[in-house]
Amino acid sequence: MRIAVVAPSCPLKREAAERVQNIVAKRGNCELVIHPQCFLAEGHFAGPDGARLAALSEVMADPSVDAVWFARGGYGSNRIAEAALAKMPEAARAKTYMGYSDAGFLLAGLHRAGLSVAWGPMPQDALREGGEAAVRRALDWLVLGEPSALEPGIEAPAMAFNLTVLSNLLGTPLEPDFTGVDLLIEDVSEQLYRIDRTMFHVTASPNIRRVARLRLGRVGDIRPNDPAFASNEQAIVEDWCRRAGIHFGGRADIGHDARNKVVPFGARFR
Amino acid sequence: MRIAVVAPSCPLKREAAERVQNIVAKRGNCELVIHPQCFLAEGHFAGPDGARLAALSEVMADPSVDAVWFARGGYGSNRIAEAALAKMPEAARAKTYMGYSDAGFLLAGLHRAGLSVAWGPMPQDALREGGEAAVRRALDWLVLGEPSALEPGIEAPAMAFNLTVLSNLLGTPLEPDFTGVDLLIEDVSEQLYRIDRTMFHVTASPNIRRVARLRLGRVGDIRPNDPAFASNEQAIVEDWCRRAGIHFGGRADIGHDARNKVVPFGARFR
Repeated sequence: MRIAVVAPSCPLKREAAERVQNIVAKRGNCELVIHPQCFLAEGHFAGPDGARLAALSEVMADPSVDAVWFARGGYGSNRIAEAALAKMPEAARAKTYMGYSDAGFLLAGLHRAGLSVAWGPMPQDALREGGEAAVRRALDWLVLGEPSALEPGIEAPAMAFNLTVLSNLLGTPLEPDFTGVDLLIEDVSEQLYRIDRTMFHVTASPNIRRVARLRLGRVGDIRPNDPAFASNEQAIVEDWCRRAGIHFGGRADIGHDARNKVVPFGARFR
Repeated sequence: MRIAVVAPSCPLKREAAERVQNIVAKRGNCELVIHPQCFLAEGHFAGPDGARLAALSEVMADPSVDAVWFARGGYGSNRIAEAALAKMPEAARAKTYMGYSDAGFLLAGLHRAGLSVAWGPMPQDALREGGEAAVRRALDWLVLGEPSALEPGIEAPAMAFNLTVLSNLLGTPLEPDFTGVDLLIEDVSEQLYRIDRTMFHVTASPNIRRVARLRLGRVGDIRPNDPAFASNEQAIVEDWCRRAGIHFGGRADIGHDARNKVVPFGARFR
């Protein structure tokens, strides 16, 4: 299996790339092609929009590539997602795409276009405490279809999103159909009042209200709220689900951390 | 003129209330009734949802009240907006409603329901450096219809929103019709990558794309972006307007500051 790594958002750290290549070398069951675009830097992004789009389009069009693995999140994939989808080569349809966080913009658009996508750990996760296990988990699923890599509770069709990314893709051409979906959300580095406001926005969507259930992953690195919000992330999510008539399905095993699991979108569990 | 102050979001500071009452006493052309709910505090909010809703509903239903002035922003008016609109008393229609920032959720919903609303300074602004001028400006417009209080470039129909609030009300029952509107936006205490992401979301809306033009107020207290975003707020807004086919109409004289001007929504300039 040949896996191409591109960075539609922020640059990949060299050290992360080395660690992931070491893991891949030890496995011996796949080849990892890290596109040089991953190391570009222009302000916030891994190179200008044009360079990020060109790298993504290149690996999408390459018939020798079996999977496209997004290097990391941050911010910026939304800036090139529509253009990448507009000129979709036929070879793009025979691959699996994996990432999470900001890559959710691309996962949404690619899934909507009928391609095979999955939420899952990314190469940059190699730098997290215990993150090499996350990288191995992603590869176990991409290369071997290993069931233990999957979020344990998913009932197909499933999807997973960073809550803030989800909020920002509603109403855009990237928004997928949520009917009957086991929808997993998580978030990181937000204040609780923002989580509350974003849940208001997301649960007002008639499309989101058609999910089978909504489950809450981990909300990490919650930023201070002044004064204290007097609630917590689960109570907030349950409250908005109740108001919107959405079935709250409990907690989910995803998040911006080394334990993050794989969630293939739609009916395909590989 | 009788002006009622309620706090649908966060609590009003006692000191701000005193300063505003002093200004009103000196004017002698209006009466300010500050509802005791303004000083409640429950976690983030000026009392629980029920108390904030009850106070708002009470002043909306009171025929002796000519204007409802939202005490301050923060966060929370979205949590009670739909309920306030659902049981709208007839007396609510004969008043003007003023506020900005988080109060935008209410301005949007009340305007959509056909009521007279305006973006403008709030009582809590009395605590800002130079903020008493902002309070006088709001009263000049509410009580006297003073034209110099207005944002100088507005072409009716106009609307003004905090960009992040606008993003969070799109797709909700509070979303007004933006067709032909002179839309003014501003923001505060955000990182530039968030401004960029929010502009992506907002300008993807077909409703927003029907504005006559979009103008940018002040983006204050921009939080550090690591690495530097390599752009600025005006370039970001112009870029997304260009991508979306929205006419960028230049800068606007609104913001989270003492210079903030009044923007009556819709065709009514009073």
